[in-house]
Amino acid sequence: MTSEQQQIQSSPGRKLRDRIVASGVAQAMAAHSPLSALLAEEAGFEAVWASGFELSALYGLPDLSLISSTQHLQMVDTIIARCPGLPVVADLDTGFGNAVNVAHAVAAYERAGVAAVVIEDKHFPKVTSLAPGHARQDLVRAEEFQGKVEVACTARRTQDLVVVARTEALIAGLGQKEALRRASAYAEAGADMILVHSKHKTPDEILAFCRTWDGKVPLVLVPTSYPELTVQCVHALGCVGLVIWGNHAIRAAVRAMQAVFTRVRADGGVHEVEAEIASVAEIFRLQDMDKANELERRYVR
Amino acid sequence: MTSEQQQIQSSPGRKLRDRIVASGVAQAMAAHSPLSALLAEEAGFEAVWASGFELSALYGLPDLSLISSTQHLQMVDTIIARCPGLPVVADLDTGFGNAVNVAHAVAAYERAGVAAVVIEDKHFPKVTSLAPGHARQDLVRAEEFQGKVEVACTARRTQDLVVVARTEALIAGLGQKEALRRASAYAEAGADMILVHSKHKTPDEILAFCRTWDGKVPLVLVPTSYPELTVQCVHALGCVGLVIWGNHAIRAAVRAMQAVFTRVRADGGVHEVEAEIASVAEIFRLQDMDKANELERRYVR
Amino acid sequence: MTSEQQQIQSSPGRKLRDRIVASGVAQAMAAHSPLSALLAEEAGFEAVWASGFELSALYGLPDLSLISSTQHLQMVDTIIARCPGLPVVADLDTGFGNAVNVAHAVAAYERAGVAAVVIEDKHFPKVTSLAPGHARQDLVRAEEFQGKVEVACTARRTQDLVVVARTEALIAGLGQKEALRRASAYAEAGADMILVHSKHKTPDEILAFCRTWDGKVPLVLVPTSYPELTVQCVHALGCVGLVIWGNHAIRAAVRAMQAVFTRVRADGGVHEVEAEIASVAEIFRLQDMDKANELERRYVR
Amino acid sequence: MTSEQQQIQSSPGRKLRDRIVASGVAQAMAAHSPLSALLAEEAGFEAVWASGFELSALYGLPDLSLISSTQHLQMVDTIIARCPGLPVVADLDTGFGNAVNVAHAVAAYERAGVAAVVIEDKHFPKVTSLAPGHARQDLVRAEEFQGKVEVACTARRTQDLVVVARTEALIAGLGQKEALRRASAYAEAGADMILVHSKHKTPDEILAFCRTWDGKVPLVLVPTSYPELTVQCVHALGCVGLVIWGNHAIRAAVRAMQAVFTRVRADGGVHEVEAEIASVAEIFRLQDMDKANELERRYVR
Repeated sequence: MTSEQQQIQSSPGRKLRDRIVASGVAQAMAAHSPLSALLAEEAGFEAVWASGFELSALYGLPDLSLISSTQHLQMVDTIIARCPGLPVVADLDTGFGNAVNVAHAVAAYERAGVAAVVIEDKHFPKVTSLAPGHARQDLVRAEEFQGKVEVACTARRTQDLVVVARTEALIAGLGQKEALRRASAYAEAGADMILVHSKHKTPDEILAFCRTWDGKVPLVLVPTSYPELTVQCVHALGCVGLVIWGNHAIRAAVRAMQAVFTRVRADGGVHEVEAEIASVAEIFRLQDMDKANELERRYVR
Repeated sequence: MTSEQQQIQSSPGRKLRDRIVASGVAQAMAAHSPLSALLAEEAGFEAVWASGFELSALYGLPDLSLISSTQHLQMVDTIIARCPGLPVVADLDTGFGNAVNVAHAVAAYERAGVAAVVIEDKHFPKVTSLAPGHARQDLVRAEEFQGKVEVACTARRTQDLVVVARTEALIAGLGQKEALRRASAYAEAGADMILVHSKHKTPDEILAFCRTWDGKVPLVLVPTSYPELTVQCVHALGCVGLVIWGNHAIRAAVRAMQAVFTRVRADGGVHEVEAEIASVAEIFRLQDMDKANELERRYVR
Repeated sequence: MTSEQQQIQSSPGRKLRDRIVASGVAQAMAAHSPLSALLAEEAGFEAVWASGFELSALYGLPDLSLISSTQHLQMVDTIIARCPGLPVVADLDTGFGNAVNVAHAVAAYERAGVAAVVIEDKHFPKVTSLAPGHARQDLVRAEEFQGKVEVACTARRTQDLVVVARTEALIAGLGQKEALRRASAYAEAGADMILVHSKHKTPDEILAFCRTWDGKVPLVLVPTSYPELTVQCVHALGCVGLVIWGNHAIRAAVRAMQAVFTRVRADGGVHEVEAEIASVAEIFRLQDMDKANELERRYVR
Repeated sequence: MTSEQQQIQSSPGRKLRDRIVASGVAQAMAAHSPLSALLAEEAGFEAVWASGFELSALYGLPDLSLISSTQHLQMVDTIIARCPGLPVVADLDTGFGNAVNVAHAVAAYERAGVAAVVIEDKHFPKVTSLAPGHARQDLVRAEEFQGKVEVACTARRTQDLVVVARTEALIAGLGQKEALRRASAYAEAGADMILVHSKHKTPDEILAFCRTWDGKVPLVLVPTSYPELTVQCVHALGCVGLVIWGNHAIRAAVRAMQAVFTRVRADGGVHEVEAEIASVAEIFRLQDMDKANELERRYVR
């Protein structure tokens, strides 16, 4: 393609924005690898959530700012290499430090080709949001986080890149008023969308927030703790642009591997599980073996 | 622990050798991540197969020497960091080039803590063994591969590290005689075990090989194409030390993610899949959140 | 910047092409890190040569296809992150395998933002070109390499990316006729430029090649073995677009570190070397501390 | 070598401890790559300082916790691969977060084979210690840092690994009393050595500290700001075990590359700089080409 043709292509951020408009409520499925992202794309999700939680789990590590920005960015980069048309919503946790770290990270993730970056108002190092009991959930001051949002907006090369500010005020037990105050402050600081997270077992807390939200910018929800919230219901709220299914890829994979491993061990072989798992041919299809074979045929002489 | 105490610990290679002796036939389950390795360990497998095919699939790439030694070694390194007691059998494909590359790779993998390295007698770049149709499957000369086996043995720091020579003679359609000739040559060159691969749909070809094998060194089998071969049956052969379940982790994960993604998309939510996937608490357990919480309680002041 | 503004920016390949035209003969200095690339940019070089030899040396490893594509690509990626306006000419060695590997690599390097990719007609794994004595220097058949050039051209997303085909025919001692035959074949296969390498101690061999070259596409020279060849002289040839100074960054660094280390050891301190090395303030300048300080002042609250 | 022989080898930490005893005051030269570490080893330094400042500079980035633990650990890992007999003193900055991050990092660095880890009592993200003017230099509470020291000691597998606690109290302008209070607290918490840093232009501040130090554990000094402090002088203090030359490798390299690049640009060629830089043969020597050639001769058939 010529430079001119390439220029007509929309940026990843623009594509995500268009899909949000087109779908009313776009859905992003969690991913921890190019393969899981590809499966999400094939299933019809408008975007993929490059999840820090899932990647931590892939490494068998708790989601406590232990995996590095390099490890996460490599996952993102290889996802985009494999799925160039799929908007990636990148989970930057706290932005890996303060506002200077955010500026550095946003530049790096935008270069890699993400559609959106999500930063949250916790202290670095963070504790995963759904941690049970009385885990530490300490937030930076709203003013400090506004600085992080502002620098994220400034650091991007194009305005297309979607900057999502995530407030953990409800997770931290600070109440609706504080959550709304922070969400408004972050929108004022330039955030394109506000992600508000809750660990209540029902959607009540989130629904209360949504109904009070002035709609200045669209919201992002992550219905993990309260799975009964459907897209249809979210749609009716009118103020939500994106729903993220936050960790269902890795949870599906874990259950399946556990079941298959147990069976193989018990059966002393793979004869019984063969029909319950994807075929080798299906893996070849996901690896795009046909394209490689075609290249080999044409160019390996 | 003191230096003295640590010295009493057996090396990873020694541990694998002991487990082969103890079990008669040890089983290694394929892994593509620390998480899948951890699940394999929990299911009772004696070892894990750090599979190039699975890692290629995780990247959505065909298994054609496209993922780099760095990418594979990083997977291996993070597996061993998470599962320090689990012997890792590392799939080095061709050794990433010629004998000089093998020497470099063996040193790097031994430093990372693997129990065994497996190198195969294909040309670099390789084509995955189970490729359908008439895919290129060209082998290096047996003499050249003997050089690779010898250098692998020389490059290791301790004799404990298990050097496995893999012949693709049957995959390449060269027949039993050539497979036996190569297997013997590789054993003579110093290989501790011989992996012989077949893509027949039944175990006949492999069983024929096993029955003719003089038993100089133990064999390794990978019953992917011929799933009906059980460990019990392998045990009876008497000449096999290790069975590798070569790609069942990723195939299990793919089928499960496809099913769950389709359901979420169809249902417009995760309410229905919640019961079919691992719980968030189970992921926390695999991430060893308890240990992290304990560290946080005791040392974060 | 808006999407529209960004579209006006020229691609890295276009920028390199423009600089070649503007300068008559562009010069690329070798680099092994973002820092050395930055220094090359500051010194006025039109481009930087992301050298496999220098990177191998940085790792203390021989240049024999031991560093992986991942390690090289990470260097390239961090160079471009730090020097976004500097065209990077990426040394892909053999393309890391056959034509399928080339297709994979070209896509990855183009995504990272290189201006040019250089692939050479040696077998993988290669032996460094200037190796003394009778080192192995075996080339693939010209027809096979044409396939690699073609696939490189096909794999790029924009025609701007400069595909350079490098022939080692003179290095391999195959003579002028074979070098010209291969150079022509590669140009026919679509190469934008031809790099021809020589290890003669004088420029005679290269000058003879240049004078016979039909000028179908511009040439690239690497005057390492024959340092007396100047840009002025190259300019007069009329057929050369780019001169690469192939390993002078790392060689400069080595000599300086050796001298300083020896002095520090002998002096039992750094008091004497202080004046002979860059100041800490100069390192701060190269790290762009001012920008970081400005970000910290404005956004860290 | 057999397992038994390997067990006789001392651990990297033990080796560093022995060298400190043997030399009275050991010296560690800064490194940013395997190559610079190798040169430091050849120059006779007892250890190498795997410097975060130097690595940041190599990336052209300010030393503000922007390079990730992964990037730093990869440098350390490749240094140890190339220089297996050289004790590496690893600069972990703040430990990449809180005590949980420290535990994770110490395990990873010990696995890679370092002899010592150094953690400092600044907040994450840190600002480089020698930053001019009134840069932020905020420390964590001494009690919090004691927790980090304790967890570092607990996380190591062998007691041989040297845990160095670094106080930035003088850098932060908190005075001698606070510096001593913190140093004592960290020694009580288990630190094997205390690194005390100063940015005064003369050694007075550091000497005052040393003279008051009770000698409970040995000190580590980094005479960058006050270059006139010699090893002879340090020796006489009697309380210092290690001197680190903190950034002289990269500063030497920068000055040399700047000079050579300028000359090449001015001369329009490399003919004049050829004699001022290391020869290609010298680079081959550092790459250990001889060993590779020998491997190629013996094993590539």
